[in-house]
Amino acid sequence: MPITTTSRLKRLRHALDSAGAGTLLETHLPNIYYLSGFSGDSGALLVDPASATLFTDGRFTIQAKEETRGIRVQIHTGSLLDAVGGHLRARKRHRVAVSPSRLTLAGWKALRKAAGGNLKWVAIDGIVESLRAVKDAAEIDRIRDAARLGSQVMEETIRLIRPGVTELDIAAEIGYRMRRKGASGESFEAIVAAGPRSALPHARPTARRIGKNELVVLDLGAILRRYCSDLTRTVHVGKAPARVRQWYHAVLEAQAAARDALKSGVPCGAIDAAARNVLQQKGLGRYFVHSTGHGIGLEIHEDPRIARDQKTILETGNVVTLEPGVYVEGVGGIRIEDDALVTPRGAEILTTTPREFLEL
Amino acid sequence: MPITTTSRLKRLRHALDSAGAGTLLETHLPNIYYLSGFSGDSGALLVDPASATLFTDGRFTIQAKEETRGIRVQIHTGSLLDAVGGHLRARKRHRVAVSPSRLTLAGWKALRKAAGGNLKWVAIDGIVESLRAVKDAAEIDRIRDAARLGSQVMEETIRLIRPGVTELDIAAEIGYRMRRKGASGESFEAIVAAGPRSALPHARPTARRIGKNELVVLDLGAILRRYCSDLTRTVHVGKAPARVRQWYHAVLEAQAAARDALKSGVPCGAIDAAARNVLQQKGLGRYFVHSTGHGIGLEIHEDPRIARDQKTILETGNVVTLEPGVYVEGVGGIRIEDDALVTPRGAEILTTTPREFLEL
Repeated sequence: MPITTTSRLKRLRHALDSAGAGTLLETHLPNIYYLSGFSGDSGALLVDPASATLFTDGRFTIQAKEETRGIRVQIHTGSLLDAVGGHLRARKRHRVAVSPSRLTLAGWKALRKAAGGNLKWVAIDGIVESLRAVKDAAEIDRIRDAARLGSQVMEETIRLIRPGVTELDIAAEIGYRMRRKGASGESFEAIVAAGPRSALPHARPTARRIGKNELVVLDLGAILRRYCSDLTRTVHVGKAPARVRQWYHAVLEAQAAARDALKSGVPCGAIDAAARNVLQQKGLGRYFVHSTGHGIGLEIHEDPRIARDQKTILETGNVVTLEPGVYVEGVGGIRIEDDALVTPRGAEILTTTPREFLEL
Repeated sequence: MPITTTSRLKRLRHALDSAGAGTLLETHLPNIYYLSGFSGDSGALLVDPASATLFTDGRFTIQAKEETRGIRVQIHTGSLLDAVGGHLRARKRHRVAVSPSRLTLAGWKALRKAAGGNLKWVAIDGIVESLRAVKDAAEIDRIRDAARLGSQVMEETIRLIRPGVTELDIAAEIGYRMRRKGASGESFEAIVAAGPRSALPHARPTARRIGKNELVVLDLGAILRRYCSDLTRTVHVGKAPARVRQWYHAVLEAQAAARDALKSGVPCGAIDAAARNVLQQKGLGRYFVHSTGHGIGLEIHEDPRIARDQKTILETGNVVTLEPGVYVEGVGGIRIEDDALVTPRGAEILTTTPREFLEL
């Protein structure tokens, strides 16, 4: 069933109008899906005041037909941007918006050459990303389902952690259980990091066996009906030393502070500060080496960013992760991450896995 | 264990010299891994005649230290390209190579602003990609192992195909079995496409149940020690109609023609033509809607491209897929794909799954 994108296109045209452009050339695939329903791996979408045209190649002819409604489909041979540029060449004095963050220098050069000199290009980033940052009810349902599925897999997987099992064994279980529950895939390759490797915030799973008396960080996410979830839990194999327990409770408190601060109307930077302040007050500020969170949706990292000094104002319908952590080289790391919907009354947490400290 | 990149850096410097640049600014992560051993998710590498500097952020401090040898590591806060530009600002009249296909317009603007006006930029694509296209013995070993692992999983998974099983069930088994055999992940989300969906060359698995008398396309790849494999088999559930059997044998013959043509010294376009001609002679040319193959290595799609009219000359040490197919809307598709090492004597096939037509 194609998704209905009429109201999205309407909001986009309004935003384009405000930006002084009549036409948008969209090249970012998640944005193309959002605006047209097309989920193929190659394409460009041209949105005019009155019509929308999808450019893709022969591999996606059938798929484009099946997935879109009310969108013209143009199959090209040769280079995608040559085809789009050639299509635009006939238009004089049109104002066409392009995203400088989504176009390569080489693509930009090819596009201008193919389009000739009659167009006026408007360089503007984030128009569609801003629309996507505010989720509608159907999108929130999908993320909620993806978060629930991810939480179930997290709870099942934590039970499999014991000395002798490898990080890769656990990662294999995560991917398998997600798909068996109906996920189309993982939002990203799950992180399973044990012992000192847990101090690497972006560790990839290895054949390393989980030992006794080690921290284990599990960071996973499911894609369900194209929407992502993302959650992290940290457990300790065996009874934890006092300092590890202190770190855990500090991270937990930092996350609670971010959760309490989250609501529409608040700048993103204030959420980051809420978490960061807790860790700083406990002397752990320098071990918190990343930002507090990020939007999730069709992509695993999208707007808004919950980072230091971010001035973007949270809106009802944003869905973000809250994931403070501490990482101590040679010892280990702790991160706790949940997915939260922003509402006028505060955060609604979509992930359902308990957060108490587990010593397995 | 960090990988040794000394000889790669030496070859790179030689290539830079020939291109009239003293320094390379590399922003593509697989290229950065190839040149430095760093496998983090964010970074830039500056290669000078006498030194190499990796720029990354605090999430990757420990990892950068562990994974590199003889590379300076510079941890930045704020934007990556601002940091690199600021570092370059002090240099006068240096000639710095950048890849127009790997830099966004926005990144380019930020970089030039931060670097000031004293540098001479040299726009050149594919320097590192050309080095990467010719694999050394250690890389070939890794791809061979990844191809063998992928082949084993293919053979195990084919046995699970029967009416009533969903595409997602099969995809779950593929990911699970790969990781249980030691793969760090999948080269791409496996394609499991049954019935009319098999006519979509890039179908994603769905909850659709495999029916009786249907084609099923399985396209999968493993990542083992960072190197990718990629293979496809097509089977028929039940006894196939005569035309399906004819299509299968036509694709098989097309692949054999490509395999027979593959050796060093031959232009890539000739390999594509060898496969395409067979299908055209059988009246199936219009159903072969993509190119014949692509390089594999650290990435699932890399140089060289085995496509129509490609003039690149095959070299000993290239590793490419050979994957002709036919796709008939409303009926189904057939693709047969193997991984081949290019040698002076011809193709050495690295994947090991038999190719005979299976009617399950």
